[in-house]
This record gives sequence, C-alpha cells and structure tokens, in this order.
Amino acid sequence: MGPDRSALRTDLRPHGALTGRRGKGGPMRHTHSGGGLFPHPENRDMFTELLRQVIDDYYRWHAQCAEAAAPALIDPTHEAVADCPAGPAGDMDAVASLVRELSGRLAHQATPVPSPLYLAHMTPDIPVAASLAYLCAMLYNPNNVTPETAPVTTELEHEVSDDLCRLIGYQLGTGWAHLSSGGSSANFEALWIARNLRSVPSAAEAHPAAADLVADRSPLVLANMPVPQVLDLLAALSARGLLPEVGRLAAEQRREANTSGTLLLAQSAHYTWDRCADLLGLGPADVEKVELTQTHRVDVRALGRRVRALLANRQPILAVVAMCGSSGEGAVDDLDAILQLRADCERRFGASFYVHVDAAFGGYCRSLWLRPDGTMAPFEDRPLDGSGARMKPEVHAAFRALHLADSVTVDPHKSGHSPYPAGGLVFRDRRAVSLVARESMYFGQGNGTRIPFGPHTLEGGRPGAAAAAVWAAHRQIGLHSQGYGRLLGGCVATAQRLHKRFSETGRTGPTATYGVDSEVISCFAPDLNILNLSVGPRESECRRVGGGAFGRLALDSILAEAADEPLTSLYVSGNSFTGRPLPGGVEQVLRLCTMKELGPAALDVVELRLRAAVSRSVAKVGTDGVAARPVSVPASAKEWK
Amino acid sequence: MGPDRSALRTDLRPHGALTGRRGKGGPMRHTHSGGGLFPHPENRDMFTELLRQVIDDYYRWHAQCAEAAAPALIDPTHEAVADCPAGPAGDMDAVASLVRELSGRLAHQATPVPSPLYLAHMTPDIPVAASLAYLCAMLYNPNNVTPETAPVTTELEHEVSDDLCRLIGYQLGTGWAHLSSGGSSANFEALWIARNLRSVPSAAEAHPAAADLVADRSPLVLANMPVPQVLDLLAALSARGLLPEVGRLAAEQRREANTSGTLLLAQSAHYTWDRCADLLGLGPADVEKVELTQTHRVDVRALGRRVRALLANRQPILAVVAMCGSSGEGAVDDLDAILQLRADCERRFGASFYVHVDAAFGGYCRSLWLRPDGTMAPFEDRPLDGSGARMKPEVHAAFRALHLADSVTVDPHKSGHSPYPAGGLVFRDRRAVSLVARESMYFGQGNGTRIPFGPHTLEGGRPGAAAAAVWAAHRQIGLHSQGYGRLLGGCVATAQRLHKRFSETGRTGPTATYGVDSEVISCFAPDLNILNLSVGPRESECRRVGGGAFGRLALDSILAEAADEPLTSLYVSGNSFTGRPLPGGVEQVLRLCTMKELGPAALDVVELRLRAAVSRSVAKVGTDGVAARPVSVPASAKEWK
Repeated sequence: MGPDRSALRTDLRPHGALTGRRGKGGPMRHTHSGGGLFPHPENRDMFTELLRQVIDDYYRWHAQCAEAAAPALIDPTHEAVADCPAGPAGDMDAVASLVRELSGRLAHQATPVPSPLYLAHMTPDIPVAASLAYLCAMLYNPNNVTPETAPVTTELEHEVSDDLCRLIGYQLGTGWAHLSSGGSSANFEALWIARNLRSVPSAAEAHPAAADLVADRSPLVLANMPVPQVLDLLAALSARGLLPEVGRLAAEQRREANTSGTLLLAQSAHYTWDRCADLLGLGPADVEKVELTQTHRVDVRALGRRVRALLANRQPILAVVAMCGSSGEGAVDDLDAILQLRADCERRFGASFYVHVDAAFGGYCRSLWLRPDGTMAPFEDRPLDGSGARMKPEVHAAFRALHLADSVTVDPHKSGHSPYPAGGLVFRDRRAVSLVARESMYFGQGNGTRIPFGPHTLEGGRPGAAAAAVWAAHRQIGLHSQGYGRLLGGCVATAQRLHKRFSETGRTGPTATYGVDSEVISCFAPDLNILNLSVGPRESECRRVGGGAFGRLALDSILAEAADEPLTSLYVSGNSFTGRPLPGGVEQVLRLCTMKELGPAALDVVELRLRAAVSRSVAKVGTDGVAARPVSVPASAKEWK
Repeated sequence: MGPDRSALRTDLRPHGALTGRRGKGGPMRHTHSGGGLFPHPENRDMFTELLRQVIDDYYRWHAQCAEAAAPALIDPTHEAVADCPAGPAGDMDAVASLVRELSGRLAHQATPVPSPLYLAHMTPDIPVAASLAYLCAMLYNPNNVTPETAPVTTELEHEVSDDLCRLIGYQLGTGWAHLSSGGSSANFEALWIARNLRSVPSAAEAHPAAADLVADRSPLVLANMPVPQVLDLLAALSARGLLPEVGRLAAEQRREANTSGTLLLAQSAHYTWDRCADLLGLGPADVEKVELTQTHRVDVRALGRRVRALLANRQPILAVVAMCGSSGEGAVDDLDAILQLRADCERRFGASFYVHVDAAFGGYCRSLWLRPDGTMAPFEDRPLDGSGARMKPEVHAAFRALHLADSVTVDPHKSGHSPYPAGGLVFRDRRAVSLVARESMYFGQGNGTRIPFGPHTLEGGRPGAAAAAVWAAHRQIGLHSQGYGRLLGGCVATAQRLHKRFSETGRTGPTATYGVDSEVISCFAPDLNILNLSVGPRESECRRVGGGAFGRLALDSILAEAADEPLTSLYVSGNSFTGRPLPGGVEQVLRLCTMKELGPAALDVVELRLRAAVSRSVAKVGTDGVAARPVSVPASAKEWK
C-alpha cells in the first residue's frame, strides 16, 4: 500500500482497551462500550484512516485496471479505456446528494441496534473489523461463485469453511462449510440434500449395474440407510461412473412415490421450515411437528414414538431437524438424546435417519466451551471467566453432540456478529454435496484440491465481501471461549439476569406509579439469550382479556413508542405459543433477544421501561374496555418452570 | 450531518464530466473513463470525503445508541452501556493488520473487472453512487425482512420495486418486485409460485365450499387455467377464508400426482434451472428442454408442437420459461411469439400456461427504448444516441412483450451495475405471492398499505444495503435510454464490433507472427452483449483435434496467463454448445461478456491478444501432438449465421 503505512502504524495503539473487569453484579470500572471491538469515539479516527487507505488501494487498483490495455496499444493516439455515458451519470453533485440523503435518513431513522434498549431481533452490532473488511472487499465486487471472479475472497471462504467446521466440531478435510444468503437458504439446501440422499439406495437397487452395492438390504433399511453408508454408496457409484444415472433414477422414483419420507421437527421450528417443505414439494402429510416440553424443546420421547412407529411401518424418514436456539425461544433441543434415539434405531431396526440441526441462531454458542486447541471443555456450572453465564448441563450436552449431526445451519450474521448477508451451512462429510453438484459451462477447470463453491451450493453466486467480513470477525473476536465465548456468554448472562428480575414477583414496584397492577413474567429460564415474557393484569383483574392478547397489545404499544423516538426507546419483539399455550391459554408473549451484555444499570432501565409499557397497555385495555374471553394468568412463573 | 456540510458543497462540482462525444468509430476526445460514474482519479477525493461524512454520521449515531439508556438511569453512578470482552477483541492493532492484509491482497490479486481486457463474466464495474450507498447502509446493518429492523432500506426497496416494475413495463400498484440473493433464488421462487398456482383450480374443485368457483371447467382447463383467472380464483378463495384449506389441498394433490406439470424451457437455459427443477421435486420427465435455433434462441415452432401435444393429451404445463439474455450466449428468446402461442392455446383449447422470463442478465436492456415518461419507443435501427448499437427488430419485439409475462427475473447485480448481492424478481400481478405467504410470529403488524417483504419472499431476510445500492445506481444512472440505455447500448455495440472483427476472415494478420495459421470466428451475431467465438486451426490443419477441444485449451491457456499477470491480462470465459453443436461438432467455444464499452484502440488490443492466445494454443497442440477425432472447422462464420 502507500508509503505512509509505517507512519500510520505508530498511531495503531489499542484504543479503548478495557482497563478493568466488572466484579459479579458490581458497578463497572470503565466508562465505554466494547473497547476496540465495536465502534467507539476512540476508534473513529482509526476507522476513518483505515478506510481512507482502503479507498486509496482501491482507486489505485482501479486506475491500473483502466490502464491495462495501454502498453499494448498499436496506435498511441487511440484511447484504450471504456467510454461511458455522460449526462446525469457523470454528475458528482447528484452522487453527493444521494449519499447525503441516505446517510442522513439512516442516522436519524435506522433501528438503534447498538442501544442497550434494543432487545428486539437477532441483529448484532457489527465489530469494526467486520465492517471494514466488508467495505474493503465490497469495493472489488467479488462473487464467490468461482475463484475466477473472486480469487481472494473464495480463499477466505475456504478459511471460513475450516473455521465453521472447527466451531461445530467437524473434522477438517472431511467436513465442509460454505456461506449462504441466510439461514433460510441454508436450511433449504440441507433438506434438499437430505431428501436426495435418502432416495439413492432404492434407486441403486433398481439399477442393474448398481444393485450389488445394496444387496441383502431390506426395504426398510434401503429407505432408511444410515447416512455414512449412503455416502459410501455414493462414492462407489461415482467410482463406477453411475452417479448421474442413479441420481436421475432416484429423482424419477421420488416423483412417482407419494412421499419422499417424513420430515420430523419441533413445533418451535422457524416459519421458514414450512416454506422449505412446500418448496421441496413435500405434502402436508410429510411434515410432522412434534410436541414441545415446557421449556419449548422438542419432546424427545414423543419424537421417539413417532420415529419407531414410522420404522415399524417401513416408512421412510426424510430427516429429523433439531433446533439449536429456536427463533422464538432460543430453546436448544436435546440433540444428544435425539442422536441416542438414532443409535437405538440403528441397533434395533438397522434403520436410521438424517439429522440436521438448525443452529442458525445458537451455533456460535458452542464457542463458550471451545479451548484454544479446538477441543470442547467438559461441563462446569460456570464455564467462562467473566461473563457470569450459568449454562444448563443439558445445553452443554446438546452442543457436545453437535459434531455427530449430519449438517448444521449456523449464521455468521446472527450470533457470529457479521453483517448481512452471511448464513452458513456446515456438513459433517463433504461427500454429501456431490449428489447435488451441477457443473457450470462458463468457468475454467478448478485446481481439484478444494471443493469449488459454485457447483456445490444451492445459490452458486454469493458476495465475496460477506466471506471477508466473517473471516475478519472470526479473527478479531476469536472462535474460542475467551472470544466469542466471552461475548455470547455475556448475552446469555444478560438473558438470565432479566429472567431473574421477571421471576421475582416482589419486584413490580415501578408499575404502581401507573395505577394499574400489571405483571410481567418470564415464561421459563432461557437456554440461550432469548427471553419470553408473559404480560397481563394481576390475578384480581385478569378475567377480562383472553388468549394472552395483552402480549400483542403491549408489543404494538412498545413499537409505536419506538417509532416516535427511535434512538432512545425500548425495543422488543413478539412471539406466539400457538403450539403450546401457557396456562390460561396465553399464546402471545413478548420476546427479548439479548444480543449484547448489559450492566446492572442498563438492566434497571430495561426493567423499568418494560414494566411501564406493559402497565400502560393494561391500563389502556381497562380504559378502552377491550375485553374478551376469560383468562387466568398465574401469579408467578414457578408454575411454568 | 456535520457543520462542515455546506463548506463541502462548494467542492462538489461535477468531476470528470465528459467534455465531448465520440463520433462513429472515431477516436475519443477525452482521456478518462466514465467521468463521475465509475471510480476515477478525479473523483477519489470526493469519494473519500463523502465516506468520511458517512462514517461521522455512523459514529455519532452509534454513540447516541450506546447512550440511549442514560437519561433514565436510576443510579447515575451506574454504567448503562454494554460491557464487551477485552483481550484480542479490543486490539485495534490486530484490526489494522487484518484490514491491511485484506486490502493489500485485493489490490494485487482481485479480478480486474474494470479493465478493458476483462471480458469474462457478467461482473459489472460499480458506479461510485452504488458503492457509497452500499457502504453507508451496510454500517447500520439493516435486514429488509421487516421495517422493524430496516425502516429506511425497506422503504428504498419499495422504491426499487416500483423502478423494476417500470423497467419491465408492469403497472405500478398491480405489479410488485423484490430483491433476492441472486438470479438463482429469484428463479426458484418464480417456479415455486408457478407450480403452486397451477394446482389451485383442481384443489378448489375438490373442496365442497369452493367447487362452484370453478364449475363447468373441463379437466384440461382446470389443469391449465389462464393465470389471471387463477389469481381471481385466489382472491375469491381468500374472500371466503378458504385459501389456507385449498392451499393445503393443492399441496396434497401435488404430492399424490405423479407430476406437477411439464416445465418447458430452452436448452440454452442456465444450469441453475436443472437445480431448480430438482429442488422443487420435479422428476426428470417433468422438464423438457426445447431445441434451439441457429442463434441459440428457443425454437418457438418446436415449443408450439410440444405445448399443443401436451394440451391435446390433457397434460398440465407447469410453466414455459423464456430466456432474455441466456447466460452462455446472451440470446433473447422470441417472447412475443411465445405469448402469441399462449394466446392461440387459450383461443383453441381454453387452456394456458404460466410464462416466466429469465432476464437475470438481459432485463435492464429494455432501458434502451425507455423514454423518460416510462413508455417504450418503437423499433428503430439505431434507437440510441451515441452508443452505436444496432438492435435486432426481433429483440425489440421480445422486450416489447416483456410486460405480458407473468414474472421476470432481473438482476441489478448484473447489467444493473449494482454490487453483489442483488438479484430481483418482478411480478406482473402482486396477487401471485399471496399463495406462498408465510406469517412470522416475531414481527409487529405492518401498516397494511404495502406488501411486507419478509412473509412474501422466499428468503425473507435480505441485506438492506443491497436495496440502498440498487436505489442509488438507478438514480445515478437513470432507468431510461439516456441512462442505462446509453450504458448498455455501449456494451452491446462493443459486442457487435467484436463480432464484426471476428466475422471478417481477412483480419487474421497478427496470428501469423506465431507461425500457426489459426482462426477465431464469431459463432453468430449477438442479440445482446455476449459473444461466442469458435477457435481452432485453419482448415488445412483442422483434422487433428475434435469436438472443438481447442476452445477449452485456449480458455485454459488464457486463464493461466491471467493468473500470472492479473492486472494486465486478457480475460474471457468458456461456453459449451452441448445442446446444439456447431458444424464439425464444435461444442467448446470462448465466451466474451462485454460489460463495458470499448473504444477502437481497446478493441484492437482485445483482438490482438485473443488471436495471439488462440494461436499459441493451437501451436501448442501441434507441438504436443494432442490429437483426437477428426473435425471440420468452417472457413468462415457465414455458414453459421
């Protein structure tokens, strides 16, 4: 880069590094947020200076590109560069005006995600390294569909692929990961692959030149072959050059059969899973939503009953999808028990099923136990220095089992603190993607040592800048317990502290000032960093509005307030317990995603604001006479946990 | 923004505005590329300064967010802001080192897309307004899944939606568009919707409370109801509250039937269409690839034969997909004739089919004829001032018919000159998306006047920064003949000029210096701005390598050279004519995407470099003795056009 690089280095002392640590529950000893991790007045100049250098590099490169043809010019009086339209396109005044308008609108109206009062959605604040890396790479507009258009950022995506394998616990070189536009797309792709894998053994049996590879398998086992065996079969088919033919046969059989198998997943699954099933052409009868426990995990005993019944009837199981941090509740399904169920089925029936984990939200929390050497620490009540999070043993057990799942969705743009768009899909065994590979006619030959992204991903093209941002976030924060672990531990601890505040029935003082005796109760102790709060009037007044409608009313009231005062308001979101209503039929609750750690004072403010908003909503209901069917709101959360 | 804003304004005079226009084929009168449209040394300071202001806004906003809770603090000695991990995360030295490494690698190794010698893929150079808008919005990390997380950029996406409707010719308020991660995803969504729409009438007939809505329709018509009638039916079902039930019934029927109907599309369709069919659960027999004309458009007579045969057999047609700028050839299918075919079928059978247009690459070229008032100009041989492009009348006719297609994929990140990721899907009638809407539990109630993006898009979450960039590009360049029209007309004109150079057999002088008499021939006159070149030895030596293997060899040779000298090399891509080999069995050809306008001198250099590279490849084959089956390469391109 420029000659001023060494001069700048002297200015690159750590700005805003934390000078002290907060004791348990005590006041903080420092006065700013995030040191050098997130934007802070002290790192603004550095951010600007780095970006100035990035722009210098970019403009220099651009000029070199434009001059590329010049040395070979036949006639030097000719001009070898592109000719572009004049008129409004060339008007930098117009550009400045557009950019100013946009910047001004964003600075006044953007959702204040970095605010301690923003607890609504899974949007993270972006570390400076990730922002700078995205900005830097985006200028060169790389498309990670092929190294031909993105030599640098496809390389970074391969590094990120290794990172994500380490995060999940998959073996490097055997596992494989890639980025996607988001969790939805990653889930679509995982289920697409699971569906296609499932149908390969039967198709092999129907092919004369492949039938010997699956000889002596019962129809039940053919329809539900353990995934590693299917992958071995794929390799054998490939060695015989039969993969295209058998793949085609499998597609025909899927079309002719009335089912591709049953998809089993928790009722708490994200709404995108219904979309996914419909997209893939599953019928409604192919999707079974399994009931939930009181803490909104999938009921593994109920799941086991369904799985055994399907296998007893020789039905194919398309896949079991486990949630690792459900979108509504942050609930972590007992993956270890689900995998135990699978092992039992393999022992008892010789039959198995594909396990995909939707850890779009929760996956990065495995870093809470990740040692620097990549191994996972055993369970301890307080696994982390500093954050104060107390993880549940069954959550630890689920994360410990993650490396045995066949694939995992994990989104860097959620808990990975990367900017949008950065979903991710991680495979235990990279051979799984060979089945869906589609060759492109437009790209040159790869070097063969790495899986090319274009032919092996559902979307093909993806922005290289996203890979650069994830790469930088992973390196700035660190994929271990002292990096992401500390960051996310703080988020979990914050949810736990809020849970405690909304579990103690004595702590409702502030609402009294609003004259209505309302109640905000945490529905259950959170597995991760999402909290669900039931709201409504106290028992004395609680026979007036039914179905937990207060939740929706309070949410709308809070959102309306935020629209007036975007920068300093409280932000929460809603959730619906349609699958498993709370006692009293409560379905609509408030949902808090704690994507940041809050100190005690901030917790006070959140609690105060929340109780006040709920109290106002309840009072408004009383005034307006909005009333419906009877409801009983329990006096304490103890009944639910 | 800052107090220095007005001071800055005086510096915002247009930089680099074009001072002259180039006459037909003559030398250019100015010496730089793109004026204020693309990066240029003269607009670097402005770019930097605008970005500095953007960063100032962002840091000020971020600080305000962090202080959001402060005024409400109960105990002012408390600290209300987030507490984040110390350690490596806070180390700005590490950040600077990461960013420098990335910037340095990109500036030395990034694909030189702005180079006049870069003619490989559809990657555009990015206008400064689009880069700045992306950078600006990205800092606030908006997710356009809901206005709750992206109040500003969802608003911009609604404006972009109107832009794209105008571009295609759809009626505002009736049509609707949204952005996607790319063309693949947009195509998946379009076909998903087409498949589901197709099955609604039969399901309505099977529902006791809805059957009267489709009374007196024959099975043929039920399976192939004209799309506007299906949309009216949806509205009627919705009015009766029957949409969820009938939708479920339709999904069951789709699963039970052995086909969802036949998908008909050209053999030139992008490889992503095979992926799409497999994803949606179509069987191989459900996809019919229709043969091509000599210029690689779909053969509409052959398509008509297939459509009529299916309807005569009472088979459902899932959809007909027309290409508007095929990925390999830039071929524009005769959409007007396809729509005429549909009208004929409706008249003759009362039966119809869904028409989707994959205009991911070509859609923006409709701007060549767009008047400022949004109307489309009639055909003229030279429709544009300045660019010199001569559009074919049948290409104009296809674009004139675009507004009659049911949906169109059009990617701002291709010819729209926006950065990745920005695909787009445009619907003629917004009611089509109601069928696939999935409500989220987490968001508040919308204001009801606009279609919310989250529930009505396949992906749901999408980066708001992409919307900001597309919005800015549209406004900087202008969606009319003098804006995008002029820009893309220049790209088409460049392809046409190269076609001419490689159609004249006399112009092969430069290769003689390499001692091998080779030939580079344009396969056919391009519809848009992609050129296919057949390469090989002259007739005297042409019985040595078969199947056009020279194309692959020359491509690999050119790519290898580029890897050594990334900034100043020639870049082209490959294409395969497996569906319709050229005379002599030639399948592998070179492919040039001219995403920029080149002046005569740059064209000289491109021609020289290309002929030299091909000559070297041919010579290498001669030396190495790589030989295979006989092949006859015609002496001139005339036989093919």
